[in-house]
Amino acid sequence: MNEAPASERQAWPLDEIVAALRHSREVTHHIRHRGAVRELPSRRVIAEVVEGLTAALFPTHHGREDLNDANIDYYVGNTLARVLPLLTEQVRRSLLCTLDGTDEADPHYHERARAIAAEFAAQLVPIRALLVSDLRAAYQGDPAANSISEVLLVYPGVTAVAYHRIAHRLYKLGATLVARLISEIAHSTTGIEIHPGAHIGESFFIDHGTGVVIGETAIIGNRVRLYQAVTLGAKRFPVDETGALVKGNARHPIVEDDVVIYAGATILGRITLGAGSTIGGNVWLTHSVPPNSSITQAQMRSDCE
Amino acid sequence: MNEAPASERQAWPLDEIVAALRHSREVTHHIRHRGAVRELPSRRVIAEVVEGLTAALFPTHHGREDLNDANIDYYVGNTLARVLPLLTEQVRRSLLCTLDGTDEADPHYHERARAIAAEFAAQLVPIRALLVSDLRAAYQGDPAANSISEVLLVYPGVTAVAYHRIAHRLYKLGATLVARLISEIAHSTTGIEIHPGAHIGESFFIDHGTGVVIGETAIIGNRVRLYQAVTLGAKRFPVDETGALVKGNARHPIVEDDVVIYAGATILGRITLGAGSTIGGNVWLTHSVPPNSSITQAQMRSDCE
Amino acid sequence: MNEAPASERQAWPLDEIVAALRHSREVTHHIRHRGAVRELPSRRVIAEVVEGLTAALFPTHHGREDLNDANIDYYVGNTLARVLPLLTEQVRRSLLCTLDGTDEADPHYHERARAIAAEFAAQLVPIRALLVSDLRAAYQGDPAANSISEVLLVYPGVTAVAYHRIAHRLYKLGATLVARLISEIAHSTTGIEIHPGAHIGESFFIDHGTGVVIGETAIIGNRVRLYQAVTLGAKRFPVDETGALVKGNARHPIVEDDVVIYAGATILGRITLGAGSTIGGNVWLTHSVPPNSSITQAQMRSDCE
Amino acid sequence: MNEAPASERQAWPLDEIVAALRHSREVTHHIRHRGAVRELPSRRVIAEVVEGLTAALFPTHHGREDLNDANIDYYVGNTLARVLPLLTEQVRRSLLCTLDGTDEADPHYHERARAIAAEFAAQLVPIRALLVSDLRAAYQGDPAANSISEVLLVYPGVTAVAYHRIAHRLYKLGATLVARLISEIAHSTTGIEIHPGAHIGESFFIDHGTGVVIGETAIIGNRVRLYQAVTLGAKRFPVDETGALVKGNARHPIVEDDVVIYAGATILGRITLGAGSTIGGNVWLTHSVPPNSSITQAQMRSDCE
Amino acid sequence: MNEAPASERQAWPLDEIVAALRHSREVTHHIRHRGAVRELPSRRVIAEVVEGLTAALFPTHHGREDLNDANIDYYVGNTLARVLPLLTEQVRRSLLCTLDGTDEADPHYHERARAIAAEFAAQLVPIRALLVSDLRAAYQGDPAANSISEVLLVYPGVTAVAYHRIAHRLYKLGATLVARLISEIAHSTTGIEIHPGAHIGESFFIDHGTGVVIGETAIIGNRVRLYQAVTLGAKRFPVDETGALVKGNARHPIVEDDVVIYAGATILGRITLGAGSTIGGNVWLTHSVPPNSSITQAQMRSDCE
Amino acid sequence: MNEAPASERQAWPLDEIVAALRHSREVTHHIRHRGAVRELPSRRVIAEVVEGLTAALFPTHHGREDLNDANIDYYVGNTLARVLPLLTEQVRRSLLCTLDGTDEADPHYHERARAIAAEFAAQLVPIRALLVSDLRAAYQGDPAANSISEVLLVYPGVTAVAYHRIAHRLYKLGATLVARLISEIAHSTTGIEIHPGAHIGESFFIDHGTGVVIGETAIIGNRVRLYQAVTLGAKRFPVDETGALVKGNARHPIVEDDVVIYAGATILGRITLGAGSTIGGNVWLTHSVPPNSSITQAQMRSDCE
Repeated sequence: MNEAPASERQAWPLDEIVAALRHSREVTHHIRHRGAVRELPSRRVIAEVVEGLTAALFPTHHGREDLNDANIDYYVGNTLARVLPLLTEQVRRSLLCTLDGTDEADPHYHERARAIAAEFAAQLVPIRALLVSDLRAAYQGDPAANSISEVLLVYPGVTAVAYHRIAHRLYKLGATLVARLISEIAHSTTGIEIHPGAHIGESFFIDHGTGVVIGETAIIGNRVRLYQAVTLGAKRFPVDETGALVKGNARHPIVEDDVVIYAGATILGRITLGAGSTIGGNVWLTHSVPPNSSITQAQMRSDCE
Repeated sequence: MNEAPASERQAWPLDEIVAALRHSREVTHHIRHRGAVRELPSRRVIAEVVEGLTAALFPTHHGREDLNDANIDYYVGNTLARVLPLLTEQVRRSLLCTLDGTDEADPHYHERARAIAAEFAAQLVPIRALLVSDLRAAYQGDPAANSISEVLLVYPGVTAVAYHRIAHRLYKLGATLVARLISEIAHSTTGIEIHPGAHIGESFFIDHGTGVVIGETAIIGNRVRLYQAVTLGAKRFPVDETGALVKGNARHPIVEDDVVIYAGATILGRITLGAGSTIGGNVWLTHSVPPNSSITQAQMRSDCE
Repeated sequence: MNEAPASERQAWPLDEIVAALRHSREVTHHIRHRGAVRELPSRRVIAEVVEGLTAALFPTHHGREDLNDANIDYYVGNTLARVLPLLTEQVRRSLLCTLDGTDEADPHYHERARAIAAEFAAQLVPIRALLVSDLRAAYQGDPAANSISEVLLVYPGVTAVAYHRIAHRLYKLGATLVARLISEIAHSTTGIEIHPGAHIGESFFIDHGTGVVIGETAIIGNRVRLYQAVTLGAKRFPVDETGALVKGNARHPIVEDDVVIYAGATILGRITLGAGSTIGGNVWLTHSVPPNSSITQAQMRSDCE
Repeated sequence: MNEAPASERQAWPLDEIVAALRHSREVTHHIRHRGAVRELPSRRVIAEVVEGLTAALFPTHHGREDLNDANIDYYVGNTLARVLPLLTEQVRRSLLCTLDGTDEADPHYHERARAIAAEFAAQLVPIRALLVSDLRAAYQGDPAANSISEVLLVYPGVTAVAYHRIAHRLYKLGATLVARLISEIAHSTTGIEIHPGAHIGESFFIDHGTGVVIGETAIIGNRVRLYQAVTLGAKRFPVDETGALVKGNARHPIVEDDVVIYAGATILGRITLGAGSTIGGNVWLTHSVPPNSSITQAQMRSDCE
Repeated sequence: MNEAPASERQAWPLDEIVAALRHSREVTHHIRHRGAVRELPSRRVIAEVVEGLTAALFPTHHGREDLNDANIDYYVGNTLARVLPLLTEQVRRSLLCTLDGTDEADPHYHERARAIAAEFAAQLVPIRALLVSDLRAAYQGDPAANSISEVLLVYPGVTAVAYHRIAHRLYKLGATLVARLISEIAHSTTGIEIHPGAHIGESFFIDHGTGVVIGETAIIGNRVRLYQAVTLGAKRFPVDETGALVKGNARHPIVEDDVVIYAGATILGRITLGAGSTIGGNVWLTHSVPPNSSITQAQMRSDCE
Repeated sequence: MNEAPASERQAWPLDEIVAALRHSREVTHHIRHRGAVRELPSRRVIAEVVEGLTAALFPTHHGREDLNDANIDYYVGNTLARVLPLLTEQVRRSLLCTLDGTDEADPHYHERARAIAAEFAAQLVPIRALLVSDLRAAYQGDPAANSISEVLLVYPGVTAVAYHRIAHRLYKLGATLVARLISEIAHSTTGIEIHPGAHIGESFFIDHGTGVVIGETAIIGNRVRLYQAVTLGAKRFPVDETGALVKGNARHPIVEDDVVIYAGATILGRITLGAGSTIGGNVWLTHSVPPNSSITQAQMRSDCE
């Protein structure tokens, strides 16, 4: 047999492809900032961290299954001891990516990352308090919910809010890239996208949830309830004199206490939904409404039928 | 060097955090019912069970890749023998969580769980029959579908319906928490949320699917087809004299045979869509329609243009 | 003790169930084409391939974390050398499933699969060029984006488009089933469904993205931007004289350069959105619009208020 | 193509082989005691248990690498909480296998297994004390040893003795099958075989170790040192009147304090090596020697040279 | 900061090392036969195959733990269906490596490998029969053995003999490299080395076993018992006229029925140990002995004491 | 039911055990040097490093199975790029453990570890050259060896020597603890123990190998061959005036070129075996022998028979 077996022939010119990809990376389609290879946060590690934090917050539901009064504190302490250093390193990489090594006193941000992780750890109990208020809101708000355990184990809205409350603290502490990765992990799992910058009060409940989008500067009061496919978005994106987007200004809605927003409603711009209002399904709303308003698509439509 | 290396200093007061979390769990933000740590169903194990059941139902598509006439029955039998006991244990935990140990004759529900798993196993062939009707409906209903194999391997709507048919049987047999976890696994994977209580006839097809929500008491006939973002939801949630939600009453639509509902339609309340009707995209519908109706948003809007 | 312990009693008649499932597979509910067990593509392997390709395209963001100038080419070359043969085998299975073994010269399609994989490999650099244009479009198009790195690590729209660009090439080369599985993996992860047949120009950006559906024959120009829940779908499905769906004809929109389509808009049928147009949120559109149109739901409604 | 592809032809008559193996199991070559399928200990789980116990005993050397003063107790507590229940279940299975269900009060031995595991747990500190004495003996006894850490991380003799000390306690408590599996895991890893029944005093050191065999009824004093390939075995195996082996009688050597036995020495039978004796390499010894004896092969041979 | 961070500097000249290793492989220290890269057997896969075969032979001891009368045949059949194709591929690679592609009818040996695997599968029941005889011999031969289950779970000699009986069949069928890898896996695990060419009768027992070596052309009768460190080896290695070793001639001992060989005995050359003989510990024997001999080192030594 | 279920009762006083173990660690049985928790080398990581190095040295036998001329350098380069940094970190920990942080210029030894790893990397080609000489020696020295591939895949002696050649270089470069762990991994796998300090010439072959022990200061020439259970050990361990062992002096044999030592021979002390000598099986030798000696046990014994 003169012919080489298939596995030894070269099906594709590997050297050429590798060289062309290098050329693309370094010359033609260069996207790396300032040329340096940089340590970046890892989605996989961050997912592991958030699972650990969730287990530490609700060990009997999200931790190991054999926990009891005698061993639960060991489990919680060991889990935190395992994931907080992982979080520290991810925060450091987040800072490195965001701040670009400009801190002369700590060019690799070890100390700042430790301080952020420590401050975050100190807020775990307040985070848990908020999440308990969310669980109760979910149990009370859904006629299909049979127990708090079911809500905690099953509801995607609860998962998304738990991830958000963790991400939001990290966002406020300056670990923005870690925070966004946590949000995106929740988004991928639940279909609910909450920007970690959004401020959300206690007893918050999202039912069903697929397609919900809550923007970076949204402010949500206490006891608010949302359904699937609700958008709390920006109306337009102002550009500066050079035509570039103005980043970071307040551009998403303020939702006051005790508001309910039904499925598919689209609320856009820095408007205020007054306390106690109800926004009907599929409503498209771009102006503020006073407290205790009841806005429905049906009403709007009835005018023209 | 007088300073301890970083790894030995304490970045956060671990003992304090652990104690505060315990206080939160047991005193301040106590959510555990009646104080007992309880064995809970495991989402990971339930995912493994449903994957095994799917492989047993469609071994050449979802099982090991080397199956042939001589070994396929061993594969199916062994797969069922592996996952049915896992299911039994998850059902037991579901009962424990739902029924709260009040059954004096079998306080840990082993026997009841075995009976449920056995009854479920006996219904695998009828479940497969329904799923085959669903596959055919998908193949016939989507112009982009090239083969039944493609439909079975690729379509998220098929996955969601397969998981639902399994979850629904378990729900009817009393394993409600297991059933909801199965639904939620499908929801996370496909963006399609079908409450396991929903009754769905044969030859059911959901195309694309992201954002579909089908409520607990919905009843769907044969040969129904849905597109993405369709909601079969509840209109309002009645409260009892104490202000608490009334749970469990019939509150979702009845969809009769041969109805098609296009993307984004919202159907709310215990209304009936008559057989053979077509509901257009984005339609908002809260009243029953007679058989063979054709409801479109365009029509409604044309009145006001 | 006369009674057998629980683990030895038969909770379910395993032999009967296995036999009934076989009967269902082979007689009652037979769905296998022509009776032959066939090697089918594996979703798990395809997911591994696309992860490897993504790592080879953007090694510092999606590859191993310790890459530097000295070792990066080894990483890229080795990653491609590992996944291209896996891709070849999946392409072969895709052909086998699609073409049904009718090619007498190569009944198992090894050579054709190798040629497709080689041709695909040769297009990796152009694919990377397109993806770099997409990354820049995302960075410029979202006020919340802080860096290209953040966009590449976090944005689900970027993931979906990256998977699409890979899937589209394979689709054009004839590996349709592999291409659809890649699309579906992206759909499951991001909630964005892009049929691999869709043709998409450079600098494409989908923001948020959950619920986006882009159909098989859609054609999208350069610098187009979409938001969540946008549908580029088919209006109706023509049937042939036998009542069967006509498959494969052009039935989805043409979106010209520089169009922006806001969240929830539904664009149906083989219509054309003229270059530079803006389509408002939740708009329902089934007819072409000229260049530089600005279509909003609000405008339509204002007529009847 | 008329011929079935290779993967579908039957290379071997699977049904026949399975049936023949069943016949072999149940009729021809039946080895199962009393016909019942029985839960048996798992070597894999036992290996995991012993690794966990070793980590709890020496956490900085065999535990997670990031331990410090603040988190080490959580690690130790959590590790024990994880492995002690696993041990309990393995002990239960060991009892079931050994005792054959004859205990009417607890036919499945849950309570007895719990009591054994609890008693074992109470002895972890004494076990650690013995192991510390062994480590010091190794460090002092080997000129190649540079630190206690090196001894603890590297020396197979230390591993074998650590496993033995754990196994011996379990053996004494009645978990004989678990104990033997632990011994055999150490044997496989180190080449050193110590029957868990052997009684060994403090400060015991085996250097190199491959080929060492220490029998069930051996008794070893304090500060004893052995080298590779030493056998402390039985001389002959008495049979009873029916010709069956008499099991369990004292048949292995007694080695008093401060004895050194060099490589390859074979010591057989219930003899006593007096305190402070030295037994030379390759010596074959079947009779007792008084304290402070020095026995060498060379000496024996010098008689005939 | 002008200095590149550590992770970006090149600690070693990777390109140079890779090039030098290639030069070593291809020029200076070239060991590959005939230059072709070749598919080689995989130790990892072979280990998986032998574990599967062992589980199929003794499912209640080495298979999944929940087996019962109803599911055991599915487990056995499925296990064989999984590992026999893996074995076939490893046999093919073994042939490729051994036979060097000289078979024109099947240059890659698929068919031959299938035939060998099929023939091997047909011999599983006889192999099991032999192993049952071995288990009984172990139980009867060791006073420390409490049950057949213990022997099957714990004894390294039983593992080594089980692997040998599998390896020997494959060796006889021509899969020599697979056979040697199986032997070597057993050697690594147990310290017992049995060349797969050795012929061993029924009811064979090796106690303790570390250091046992049994050579390629050894022939062992029925009911033979060996202890640790026994060698059945070759005395000298004849060379041919060119000085090269003569390979494959009979050069190891023949051990007749009912022989017992105690620990450390060295038996060298093509000699015969007559039936019923007993060879004492540490004996060095290079000449045949008649039936019912009793050879001990002590006897030899007594001459000179 | 008043009684808590078993899983909630405390079977063992966990807090007490944890506290007692802490007391044991810190007070009673304290073995940690100077009280500091220290980063220690990891056996698991070192095993991964050596597997990677072996794969880089012999990629077609120990690397990924699909290597060919086009991709092999990428594999080798990527493998080295992956494992050399892991090695660097393990070397750093080895230094930390050995040198005790007394180097003020680099208290954590990063730079020294990098230099050692780089120097080691530069010696990979000479290591490969030696190993090729060893492979040829094995092939030529064993009548049962059929090919170089078989030798490289199967022979435990080859594995042990390969690990030794890697360990020896690291030992000479000062990474003594890493080196010893590598030796011990080989010992556990093969039963062959070679101290990394031993100096071994080219074309070295150990056949069978179980029980071989080669001491720290042994010096072995070229073309030496050993069989199983050979010891090259120390005769006695001198103590200093305080009674402590004198560590590190030359105390093991010198074996000159072309010596063969048969199974079970024990060679003790700083003696010299002259070039070309043959040492028979089981010989006990504590004095030097001139070149071309032939020493056999039989000869020694023949004196007294």
